[in-house]
Amino acid sequence: METILQDLHAIVGDAGLLLGADVAQRPAMSLGKGSCEARAIVRPATPEELSQVMALCHRNDQPVVPWGGLTGLVNGATAQPHEIAISLERMTAIEEFDEQAGILVVQAGAPMQKVQEAAADKGWLFALDLGARGTATIGGNIATNAGGNSVLRYGMMRQQVLGLEAVLADGTLLSSMNQMLKNNAGYDLKHLFIGTEGTLGIVTRAVLRLHPLPRSRNTAFVGVESFAQLSILLRELSASLSGQLSSFEVMWGNFYRLMTEQTGKHPVIMPTDLPYYVLIEATGNSADEDAQRFEQILGEALESGTLLDAVIAQSETQADNLWAMRDDIETLVQAMSPLIAFDVSLPIKAMEQYVQEVETTLLSRWPEARLLVFGHMGDGNLHLIITTGADTDANRHAVETLVYEKLVPLAGSVSAEHGIGLEKRQFLPCSRSDVEIALMKTLKQALDPKNLLNPGKVI
Amino acid sequence: METILQDLHAIVGDAGLLLGADVAQRPAMSLGKGSCEARAIVRPATPEELSQVMALCHRNDQPVVPWGGLTGLVNGATAQPHEIAISLERMTAIEEFDEQAGILVVQAGAPMQKVQEAAADKGWLFALDLGARGTATIGGNIATNAGGNSVLRYGMMRQQVLGLEAVLADGTLLSSMNQMLKNNAGYDLKHLFIGTEGTLGIVTRAVLRLHPLPRSRNTAFVGVESFAQLSILLRELSASLSGQLSSFEVMWGNFYRLMTEQTGKHPVIMPTDLPYYVLIEATGNSADEDAQRFEQILGEALESGTLLDAVIAQSETQADNLWAMRDDIETLVQAMSPLIAFDVSLPIKAMEQYVQEVETTLLSRWPEARLLVFGHMGDGNLHLIITTGADTDANRHAVETLVYEKLVPLAGSVSAEHGIGLEKRQFLPCSRSDVEIALMKTLKQALDPKNLLNPGKVI
Repeated sequence: METILQDLHAIVGDAGLLLGADVAQRPAMSLGKGSCEARAIVRPATPEELSQVMALCHRNDQPVVPWGGLTGLVNGATAQPHEIAISLERMTAIEEFDEQAGILVVQAGAPMQKVQEAAADKGWLFALDLGARGTATIGGNIATNAGGNSVLRYGMMRQQVLGLEAVLADGTLLSSMNQMLKNNAGYDLKHLFIGTEGTLGIVTRAVLRLHPLPRSRNTAFVGVESFAQLSILLRELSASLSGQLSSFEVMWGNFYRLMTEQTGKHPVIMPTDLPYYVLIEATGNSADEDAQRFEQILGEALESGTLLDAVIAQSETQADNLWAMRDDIETLVQAMSPLIAFDVSLPIKAMEQYVQEVETTLLSRWPEARLLVFGHMGDGNLHLIITTGADTDANRHAVETLVYEKLVPLAGSVSAEHGIGLEKRQFLPCSRSDVEIALMKTLKQALDPKNLLNPGKVI
Repeated sequence: METILQDLHAIVGDAGLLLGADVAQRPAMSLGKGSCEARAIVRPATPEELSQVMALCHRNDQPVVPWGGLTGLVNGATAQPHEIAISLERMTAIEEFDEQAGILVVQAGAPMQKVQEAAADKGWLFALDLGARGTATIGGNIATNAGGNSVLRYGMMRQQVLGLEAVLADGTLLSSMNQMLKNNAGYDLKHLFIGTEGTLGIVTRAVLRLHPLPRSRNTAFVGVESFAQLSILLRELSASLSGQLSSFEVMWGNFYRLMTEQTGKHPVIMPTDLPYYVLIEATGNSADEDAQRFEQILGEALESGTLLDAVIAQSETQADNLWAMRDDIETLVQAMSPLIAFDVSLPIKAMEQYVQEVETTLLSRWPEARLLVFGHMGDGNLHLIITTGADTDANRHAVETLVYEKLVPLAGSVSAEHGIGLEKRQFLPCSRSDVEIALMKTLKQALDPKNLLNPGKVI
């Protein structure tokens, strides 16, 4: 065994070091394509072990790739043959729970769903939620500043983190485990590690802020006749459901038609010829009153013409069914393959024209192409699903260039919530200026001068 | 005129450069003590002018002290005779208002109140609010990550900022004017300039997120018999007023007694012999229903014994009067001078014992000493007001040491919302480890290697 692997073994022991076939049976990246090529997978049992591991790697100029649950979608955790993957999968404990204040201290490898359930058991809500909840880890959520389905009400992962601990490139263990809502004692260092995709440090523990578990959930599916009405509806609901509106998920008409009449996977619950549909959800604190109010507000929107049609879920099952359509990625993939998926954000006022221009340009070049659009419109976040029929690298690159370049004049983002990883790195300049990228590099150089932490990702 | 002053004059013109008596008539710091000693005050008219100013200062190794409204309380904007103050007072424009999305683009010198009023005119809320609203500027709010009265519901200034523009130490103009709720395209650079007190860059413009203007405001003053009940009350209200509880302002008994029976400045509205009082406020979206619900929730808390007494404001005037007592700093200063004021945060579960220990230690050393406590308990933030009778530097230092050292085992913060400035710099190690402070210095070195931006502040 090579010297560095022997030295790693001395730190983490048998259970902490995977080699050979144990590495190859792991996936190279999320969505299961290919086999992991890393030189080794190191699985430290404690932050202190990871600190020693990084100190060793630093002395040996050994690059590392931090791993959360590998549910990211931008190729942000792929390890090359000369790199060592560092998995936090043995650090999954919930260490402390201040039940009075609603504060959880967890290790970074804890899966999101485990944290959600631990919180809910005591009447608290861990407010981040997304499809990969069973596998995604808190550390990965932090490293990627994960978004998901409740950002409108609760914010992204950044807003759920009060403090954290991280191992720096040279092995230094930085503990910044703040538990208070307010703390202006010097620079708030945690932001260096939130959304920086493991390039500035490896998060090992976190202090999470919880919210009171809502006592009511009201869900509706509505149809709207124009984008202008959609904007009005969002503003009206933001005001009338102030503090409680948690989702405003828009689907362009062809998304709804695909899910219902075209594939038969989901029931037709209202006419399919409308241009826009919205899945609306509000969570509150009083089961009866909230339901009554929700109905009243939607009733008024129907009367005023802001809505053309509305179906209010009458049970948890009905609400879950509405979400099932929104989240039915499987049907989407089957119907649209080979597809290219996008996760962009842009000012709401520019969305209608942006989508039209993308579609027009797309069809002018690929007359057979199809475009589906849906997303967290309340957050400025749209997912575009495009198929041109062909599945070549050149084709993919041409479509990506088309979608991203049209964001430039709108100051939109090539990544609303998924991050940059390797996949979007070449398009980062569509959303960030040379000055911004230079400052990112200044930070990287200051914290990781040897470029050992997730090299090549983001910048 | 010295060469650098001539060069500055060439950039900013007559209106942009104050010298001699024009400098001396400005205050040295907030609360009006002393006269400004800066070598000059530069007042750029545009970000581009400031960029040229900083490039010039950088070439000449000229340190600068950025100025907002000078309402900070920690000596964070004091300029020494060899330093140049940079005031953003000529950059106060509101540049853009996306009324549909609730997004404002403003220059950094815009006063907070001007921004609040511009937002309210169109049905939107700029959610940061604090006593110095007429003078404090958006740039200063950002540089200090200001807190205030509505943090419980809306977060601190950091949560109100979507994007910003800043001038770096070498004059580089960094534009990072994101307008979306979600943007994970690379590092989120704005956090380098929020709460770093002008030591890493000078903020010139900001994109602010607004919230719907609440349609109801319900305010109550309640009495509670123990700290344990206080915690229960906070948790109950957080759940039952979920998403709408905006203030939970606790006053220890002697604060209320001082404001009422001892000074006669405010009416006695409930018995004065209770250990704790709370000013509670919730803002919502339905005037009638919210009032009814607020009353019902407080009624239930009275019945269950969580509350001993409650007065609900029946009008805007009554609500304002309750706030007037909470905010009557003038009476506090008169009654307690010479006083030392603290702005600490700590876990809520540790507050009761912490205050008791501070008081016991204080009285054992200064038997005549008095301690008043109040603050944003919901945010973990307490203000301690202490008088020992004496007013010497040695005395002040002894009291500060006492108050701050007791925070160390609780992992509390020496500054919840005011920042560090010069005043608290020596106590930063009470709240931050050597590793954290070293990382702050790494950032400072990376962004401002010549130490020209607000030197000596924070670290």
